[in-house]
Amino acid sequence: MAKSMSLLWGAGSPPCWRVMITLEEKRLQGYKRKLLSFQKGEHKSQEVLELNPRGQLPAFRHGDVVVNESTAACLYLENRFQSQGNRLIPDSPAEQALVFQLSFTLRKQQKGYSVIYYDLLVPEEERHDSTLKRSKETLSTELQLWEGYLQNVWSISNHTPVSLRLTALSAGRFPKLAKYYSLLKERPSIKASWPPQWMSSRQGYGVLKDL
Amino acid sequence: MAKSMSLLWGAGSPPCWRVMITLEEKRLQGYKRKLLSFQKGEHKSQEVLELNPRGQLPAFRHGDVVVNESTAACLYLENRFQSQGNRLIPDSPAEQALVFQLSFTLRKQQKGYSVIYYDLLVPEEERHDSTLKRSKETLSTELQLWEGYLQNVWSISNHTPVSLRLTALSAGRFPKLAKYYSLLKERPSIKASWPPQWMSSRQGYGVLKDL
Repeated sequence: MAKSMSLLWGAGSPPCWRVMITLEEKRLQGYKRKLLSFQKGEHKSQEVLELNPRGQLPAFRHGDVVVNESTAACLYLENRFQSQGNRLIPDSPAEQALVFQLSFTLRKQQKGYSVIYYDLLVPEEERHDSTLKRSKETLSTELQLWEGYLQNVWSISNHTPVSLRLTALSAGRFPKLAKYYSLLKERPSIKASWPPQWMSSRQGYGVLKDL
Repeated sequence: MAKSMSLLWGAGSPPCWRVMITLEEKRLQGYKRKLLSFQKGEHKSQEVLELNPRGQLPAFRHGDVVVNESTAACLYLENRFQSQGNRLIPDSPAEQALVFQLSFTLRKQQKGYSVIYYDLLVPEEERHDSTLKRSKETLSTELQLWEGYLQNVWSISNHTPVSLRLTALSAGRFPKLAKYYSLLKERPSIKASWPPQWMSSRQGYGVLKDL
C-alpha cells in the first residue's frame, strides 16, 4: 500500500515531519520520498507545483489522492488505515475531543515562527526591537499555557502525532514540556523520521534563549 | 442532547460562527448560548477562563467535554453525532481528503486578519505602508488560490462547514468566491446562525477594497 504513496519534503519543516511521523506510526514505511532544498528554492519547482499550487512542502500523494496540508494528511492516513499500526485518534469521545483540541491548537508553532524567523521575514528597515520583544512575550505566555495542558494529557500523549518544534528549545523554563520532549524523542516513529539537518538548523534559534 | 451543551460566543468571530453553523447542520438546536462582548473584554471574564485558559471564544461544553478550538469542536460534533442532521465529512476517502485539505487550509483567514487588524494589532510607531502593501499582496495571492480551488469543489462544497469570513468582501475580483458566497448565504444553517452584529462590523474592512 505504501508503494503507491509519495512524499516531497523539506528538512527542518515541522509540517513535513508531522506527516512522516504519522506514516511511521501507521506502519506505512516503504513510500517513495524525495528531500528537496528550501534554500535552493526546490519547493517552487514544477514537480511540487503540479501537486501543490502553493509551492509548499509537504506535497503528499496516495494513488489519486493528493493532500498537502499536513494535518489533513495525518487525519486522512489515520482514517484510511485505522486498523493498521498505532491508533492515533482514540475511540472515546472525550479523549477524541482532547486530541482534536490539542492538535488544532497550533498557536505555539505560529508564535514561535514569528520570533525565530523575524529577521528572515521582515525587511531590515521595518524591524523594531519592541516588536520582537512583544513577540517573545507572546510566545512565552503560549509556552506557559502548554506547560499547563501537560498536567492533564500524559495519559493520551502517545495517541497524538506531534512535531517537536519548539519543545526542545524551551526546556529550561518549562519542565513539563522538557519531560514531554524527552519521552517523544525516544519514540520509534520519531527516531526513524528525524530529519538529518534538524540539529544543525537549531543554531539559528539563539533568539529563544532569553525567553 | 443539545440541552447539555453550552456555547459562549462573540459576534463577528469566524471561529464562533463555525461552531454555530455546525450545531445547526447537526440539528443540535436548543443548546444554551450566551453572547459576550469583545469590546467590553468579557472574553477575559472568569466565566470564560474556567473553560478556556486562553480567554478566547468560542468556549464550548458538552456535558463533561470542553472543546474550545473551533475546528476541533466541529470534528467532535460530526463524529459524536454522525448519523444526525447533515453529514459534514463524506465517506469516500478521496472526498474526505479534499474536505480535510480545504478545512485545514486556514491561511486565507490568517492573511486576512493581518490586513484587517493591522491598525488594531500593530502600534502606530511600528506601522509601515510597505508592510501593509506586502500583506495585501499576500492576501490577494491567497484569494487567487481559493478562486482556483473552487474549480473542483462545487460538488462537495455542501459537506464543508465554512465561515464566510473574507469571501463576501472580495467578491469583485474573485467571481467564483462570490458565487460560493451567494450559495452559502442561503443555506439554512448559515441564515439561522448569522451573527446580528456581523453586517455593521464590515465597515472596518475598507482596507480590503483595493485588493
